[in-house]
Amino acid sequence: MSLPLDLTSHPHRRFNPLTNSWVLCSPHRTKRPWQGQLEVSPAINLPEYDPKCYLCPGNTRAQGEKNPMYKETFLFENDFAAVKIENDIGRMKQADEKTKDEADEASSLFLAHRVQGVCQVICYSPLHNVTVAELSTTCILSIITTWIAETLTAQSLPFVKYIQIFENKGSMMGCSNPHPHGQIWCTSVIPEEPAKELDSMKRYYNKCNKCLLCEYTRMELEKKLERIVCENASFVCLVPFWAVWPYETMIISKRHITSLVDLTQEEKIALADIIGKITRKYDNVFESSFPYSMGIHQAPVDGEEHVWDSHLHIHFYPPLLRNPTVKKFLVGFEMLGEPQRDLTPEQAASRLQQCSETHYKMKST
Amino acid sequence: MSLPLDLTSHPHRRFNPLTNSWVLCSPHRTKRPWQGQLEVSPAINLPEYDPKCYLCPGNTRAQGEKNPMYKETFLFENDFAAVKIENDIGRMKQADEKTKDEADEASSLFLAHRVQGVCQVICYSPLHNVTVAELSTTCILSIITTWIAETLTAQSLPFVKYIQIFENKGSMMGCSNPHPHGQIWCTSVIPEEPAKELDSMKRYYNKCNKCLLCEYTRMELEKKLERIVCENASFVCLVPFWAVWPYETMIISKRHITSLVDLTQEEKIALADIIGKITRKYDNVFESSFPYSMGIHQAPVDGEEHVWDSHLHIHFYPPLLRNPTVKKFLVGFEMLGEPQRDLTPEQAASRLQQCSETHYKMKST
Ligand SMILES: O=P(O)(O)O[C@H]1O[C@H](CO)[C@@H](O)[C@H](O)[C@H]1O
Ligand SMILES: O=P(O)(O)O[C@H]1O[C@H](CO)[C@@H](O)[C@H](O)[C@H]1O
Repeated sequence: MSLPLDLTSHPHRRFNPLTNSWVLCSPHRTKRPWQGQLEVSPAINLPEYDPKCYLCPGNTRAQGEKNPMYKETFLFENDFAAVKIENDIGRMKQADEKTKDEADEASSLFLAHRVQGVCQVICYSPLHNVTVAELSTTCILSIITTWIAETLTAQSLPFVKYIQIFENKGSMMGCSNPHPHGQIWCTSVIPEEPAKELDSMKRYYNKCNKCLLCEYTRMELEKKLERIVCENASFVCLVPFWAVWPYETMIISKRHITSLVDLTQEEKIALADIIGKITRKYDNVFESSFPYSMGIHQAPVDGEEHVWDSHLHIHFYPPLLRNPTVKKFLVGFEMLGEPQRDLTPEQAASRLQQCSETHYKMKST
Repeated sequence: MSLPLDLTSHPHRRFNPLTNSWVLCSPHRTKRPWQGQLEVSPAINLPEYDPKCYLCPGNTRAQGEKNPMYKETFLFENDFAAVKIENDIGRMKQADEKTKDEADEASSLFLAHRVQGVCQVICYSPLHNVTVAELSTTCILSIITTWIAETLTAQSLPFVKYIQIFENKGSMMGCSNPHPHGQIWCTSVIPEEPAKELDSMKRYYNKCNKCLLCEYTRMELEKKLERIVCENASFVCLVPFWAVWPYETMIISKRHITSLVDLTQEEKIALADIIGKITRKYDNVFESSFPYSMGIHQAPVDGEEHVWDSHLHIHFYPPLLRNPTVKKFLVGFEMLGEPQRDLTPEQAASRLQQCSETHYKMKST
């Protein structure tokens, strides 16, 4: 007789139903010694205002524009945008119309089409030396308000099909400026990741007549504290069963809503509350600023109906594994084979549960 | 009238027919200033032998085993393996048989199954302070010989379905020891990346009655130097049309072969030759050791026929973008939206073409 699969000790694979892909899980592997690269800890004594920072109020940016003396959030077009608006929308639509299924044999190996868009930067606070984890619920609420306003503006642009809101936090995540800020990229295509999720959710709905994330959230709430990190009346934050990054989490709305613009005032406050909670817990894991990339997935604005193939949620992908200077490298096998994780999602959830919701810097007060 | 799509200046999307996914290309974007993280340049004056290195000949490893006084390559089982062999193969096969299509509604959101395997480490040379770029063709040939021997051994194990050979080079790529080495992970599942490629190649063959990579290689050879970096009688090395990493390349066999074990003696030498060429060119880009993850994709050993859905090739994924200390971060938009690149594949190919095939350290001799 053979042993049944034990998720806490046997190497195994877990399925991500949102992206329709697998992750390899090696629970026993955190014991290996680390002789590799140590990351540089970010500068800790930053000033409230940095005269050389291009995001601080009143300063001049790369292309010569001057920032206003903003008091809450401040939105502007990225000076080095990855996508831009162009005038030949007609042409773009044409190129777009040739899908990969229609492309002939030869051209299917050299398929390209133009992408238009708008890239914006949103400063979260006039203060140079804070992060979301250190902002009050009121300040986070004003970020959410800006996201919603920008979603409304962008979805009125005729060519915009998707609005990707995200933040790279920390130099380890390629963030080139510590001033707290995020980005909003609006594109004339639905990017790969949300497109995969839409596909999976559509397939699930066609098969089960239910929203995938409603069902998943319901089951996780039934299982109680297995993978749930924190919650409030409107949102739950959990380490998904199929998490790739060591401390990856997802914030999911309890009510079936597909977009930020559907949030009631109460829900906006609840979202600000749970974003504050998880980011403070993150900083408390190693009592240091916790780097991550985070992003919001919501319904596309492509003119189609997206009632059952989308459900508002936020992904947090933080790279740290062992301590503030040792991250998990998704390289080699992960790039060429398949994502692999060492500690289990349940271990990560339990660690995060134990972390206080009060920021470690505030503990003395 | 609108302008036609200009791949050298307009933001656009390119399709990767191997993985069936898109990459966003923003040719104009390399101009932005960089204020972000600088990577630590790797130690340059390493000794030929390091008494503290667990890979050097004669030294003792983490679990107490002593390395032999090896002269060429040396293969051993990873002391901290991500997958292991277990005795309950029967059970494993059973779990494996429940595919995601068969899984019922509830369990499809919590799908997991056991994975077995063997993880091996292969030291490329007894010398602690060299890299593949500095090895002679003869030395690279002995690495290839070891890969082939190990492929033959692994494919005789009943549960092994895939043999993933790869190398993480450089601390930037999570490599925890500078001693030149690669890894071989044999698994009871076909990992995500090769599985996607198999799928795409099968679909292409069913549609066009041709091997996708044979066709692609033929067309690239016709286009001459657009994206081809170097070649010899049996192999071509090019920056694929759909490359994600700034200097990503692929080595593709000119003859339709599906696995390392199919190589003739002449082809083995040609493979050693082209691996030497591209790694030396890489080091010459910034006259410093060029980090990368590389991996070989070949036919699975799952007992099925893989004549037309696989074609031997090697991927190189190097992270550097501007200089030896500034890498491309695939974060934020790339993780939540879709991979995005700044310089075009054609610009990268032209830069690599211009780099000498002689290693910069050898230039004085
Ligand atoms: O096995 P190593 O070199 O210690 O570890 C490295 O390669 C592995 C396979 O790509 C990765 O899972 C690890 O994250 C990385 O640090
Ligand atoms: O726009 P930033 O912050 O300068 O740049 C950062 O975020 C972008 C969007 O995720 C990435 O494409 C860049 O590689 C990264 O360095």
